Amino acid sequence: MKRRDLLKLSAGVAATACLGASTTILASSNSSLSKNLQPNNRTPNGADFDAILQQPVLKRDLFKTPVTIEKLELLNKDDEFIVRVTDKEGRQGLSLCNSRRADSAWPMILTLVKPTFEGKDARDLEALLHEVYITSPNYKFQGLAFWSCVAWVEIAILDLLGKIAKLPLWALIGEKQREKIGLYHANGDRKNSAEWVIRKLESLLEESGARALKYKLGARMHYTEASTARDKKLIPGVRKHFGDDVTLYADANGSYDIPMSLYMGKMLEEHDYGFFEEPVPFDYLEETKAVTDQLAITVAGGEQETSMWRFKWLIANRALTLVQPDLIYFGGLIRSMRVARMAQLAGLPCVPHISGLGLGQLYMAHFVTALPNTTDFQEYKGDRDKVPYVLSGTNKRYKAKDGYINAPQGVGLGITFDPEYIAEMKEITSSIPSQLS
Amino acid sequence: MKRRDLLKLSAGVAATACLGASTTILASSNSSLSKNLQPNNRTPNGADFDAILQQPVLKRDLFKTPVTIEKLELLNKDDEFIVRVTDKEGRQGLSLCNSRRADSAWPMILTLVKPTFEGKDARDLEALLHEVYITSPNYKFQGLAFWSCVAWVEIAILDLLGKIAKLPLWALIGEKQREKIGLYHANGDRKNSAEWVIRKLESLLEESGARALKYKLGARMHYTEASTARDKKLIPGVRKHFGDDVTLYADANGSYDIPMSLYMGKMLEEHDYGFFEEPVPFDYLEETKAVTDQLAITVAGGEQETSMWRFKWLIANRALTLVQPDLIYFGGLIRSMRVARMAQLAGLPCVPHISGLGLGQLYMAHFVTALPNTTDFQEYKGDRDKVPYVLSGTNKRYKAKDGYINAPQGVGLGITFDPEYIAEMKEITSSIPSQLS
Repeated sequence: MKRRDLLKLSAGVAATACLGASTTILASSNSSLSKNLQPNNRTPNGADFDAILQQPVLKRDLFKTPVTIEKLELLNKDDEFIVRVTDKEGRQGLSLCNSRRADSAWPMILTLVKPTFEGKDARDLEALLHEVYITSPNYKFQGLAFWSCVAWVEIAILDLLGKIAKLPLWALIGEKQREKIGLYHANGDRKNSAEWVIRKLESLLEESGARALKYKLGARMHYTEASTARDKKLIPGVRKHFGDDVTLYADANGSYDIPMSLYMGKMLEEHDYGFFEEPVPFDYLEETKAVTDQLAITVAGGEQETSMWRFKWLIANRALTLVQPDLIYFGGLIRSMRVARMAQLAGLPCVPHISGLGLGQLYMAHFVTALPNTTDFQEYKGDRDKVPYVLSGTNKRYKAKDGYINAPQGVGLGITFDPEYIAEMKEITSSIPSQLS
Repeated sequence: MKRRDLLKLSAGVAATACLGASTTILASSNSSLSKNLQPNNRTPNGADFDAILQQPVLKRDLFKTPVTIEKLELLNKDDEFIVRVTDKEGRQGLSLCNSRRADSAWPMILTLVKPTFEGKDARDLEALLHEVYITSPNYKFQGLAFWSCVAWVEIAILDLLGKIAKLPLWALIGEKQREKIGLYHANGDRKNSAEWVIRKLESLLEESGARALKYKLGARMHYTEASTARDKKLIPGVRKHFGDDVTLYADANGSYDIPMSLYMGKMLEEHDYGFFEEPVPFDYLEETKAVTDQLAITVAGGEQETSMWRFKWLIANRALTLVQPDLIYFGGLIRSMRVARMAQLAGLPCVPHISGLGLGQLYMAHFVTALPNTTDFQEYKGDRDKVPYVLSGTNKRYKAKDGYINAPQGVGLGITFDPEYIAEMKEITSSIPSQLS
């Protein structure tokens, strides 16, 4: 069996196969396409994807009485940011932001997001995620910064709701699909030699016990002679070094054009890689599809995507064959689950992208515990956060062992931040420097 | 003559007409399309658009010696932000930010933009606009906030370069196309009745002397029964009230679906409107094209677009028939001029979108003075800025008279901010609240 066959889907993926290549499939005026076919033995059309997007994700029925969000606070200490929501009964939910994105994005929590959520019923979270986007001027800010701010607020609210329902966060957005989550360990280095990368990957396998690895190709959004020479060493070299038992993925971060994508993609196929991530710049939709159409290897992408319409396009046109919404950049777990459902309709797996900071591995674990259509390995970047927290009721942190992490337990996120640390944080009440005391 | 014929192009628009509807025209692998046709009597293809994007906009040859950017400062007072660049000789360039966007976006000036520009030769501005995007993690932030920060830095640098070359800013990015700029006055209200809007539009014509108007349709990113009833009153009512001598435009801000767009679009055609802006949500590329294909009226859009690839798609596929890059949201005058050139290649006009705050009308005037392919009327929202400045060497501010504003004179932006006001501003040195003194 070819190693890429291991990239098989878990239970729950629809058996529908290749969509037509028509790029107009999504226009509502074309919803008559395939009208007379049965949903189970035909290609899904634009109306099918639109219908999927209307299905609720959050189990609102778990909550019989209003959960009024009385306060939404942005807390800061050093370069760390936490969002805290407090309801009328004084119950709280907290989320940790990714400090390497929040340093650029945090004002939007106050200017664009907070006004839509404060004072509202947290049970309406799903509707509020739509309202916060179409409210002027928010839709203009479509992009990672705005949607990350929404995600941090969403996760704090889900933490609160989980505590109220006495359920782990994942149980609010789906059914338990697995007890433990297999991991691939990702390495982000591009500065060092191929030999250095191989040693680094070795140390990552030791750290997490993972049986799958990902590393970087190209020079990030462009390629150079030096990066191409390095790529040609890495692709066969990493395979040779780790042998056939380790699943390998490669990520070009949009470095290539179509010809170089095909060249490297074929080399990855020869050496039996599991997927090829972002061959061309992420917003080159048709070029992405052109690469995917011409390669046998699974083409992955979606980390940079912040538009639901474009995810629909990428999935319905099979421009990607594995979708990777970033759980934060794309606006949270509920929106990401909608992407996963569109992928499921098209018979494609979803493997969310995460960042190493800001509890990425914990948010991922909640999501994947409830995710039907995925693969055997999820992204893992270690436990890098400096903020003190423990798994609730223990003195442990949340990290990999023997290549797995366990499905999260407890209520809400299932963690407790050090109360002393939280007490030292300061609430930020204005986005404008001259108005900060 | 139909009023919409007034939307004729000024000198310089290529005579090329309708592009094919093929949505794959942009894929590089299809560059063999129409290979044997002469550029002058064939439909432009993806390679033609790519070639246009490689043409420099900035006249680098004007500068014989390096202009090293020694300092790039973000200044703040109350809710106003100014970017100031200082070169090694102590010469300075300044730009005023739009306070209603900068309050959400300003940290990115420090975290994402400044590191690419400080210490560099300002003559390399055009290359730096590319570098600042592909540098990690900046491309992930594609969107209004990131590109606005780049634009404010770009305009401060162009102000500096104009002062050094002793030329107005527009002369650095093109040739003079006109001495004065015709205006349409835009009104943003959606809360009040149709009758209220008509009275408001009347007062705007009095304020600026404009002979063209724009107002809002729909409920912004959605429509309701009430908004539809109001739209049906406004479309014939505004025409009836102002008669045939006033050019009228209508802006739906993505409120409609395809059927409602066609319904309202046909009503706009009946009443001889000049263009119909953003009928469907801005990121619904194929739905935008479907509407444009089925209507005779010019369909305008682009305000929310921050991807060069997507502008290329919208233009090459004639999904829009008038392009409106926002000079700030899209990353400045140089990037916007590239969009205008793509439009010119396709035989389409460019009419930039502007905001009312942050010297929108001045930046627009510099751009349009050098813009060959445009229409008779440019967006105008009055002189709303609170920051004290004068046209250099006068005691006047920059605003409309008799429906026109003059092509800017003087050097750089051609304005002088009140030095006392600038001295009162504080430099912001960190994006993180706990690190602000």
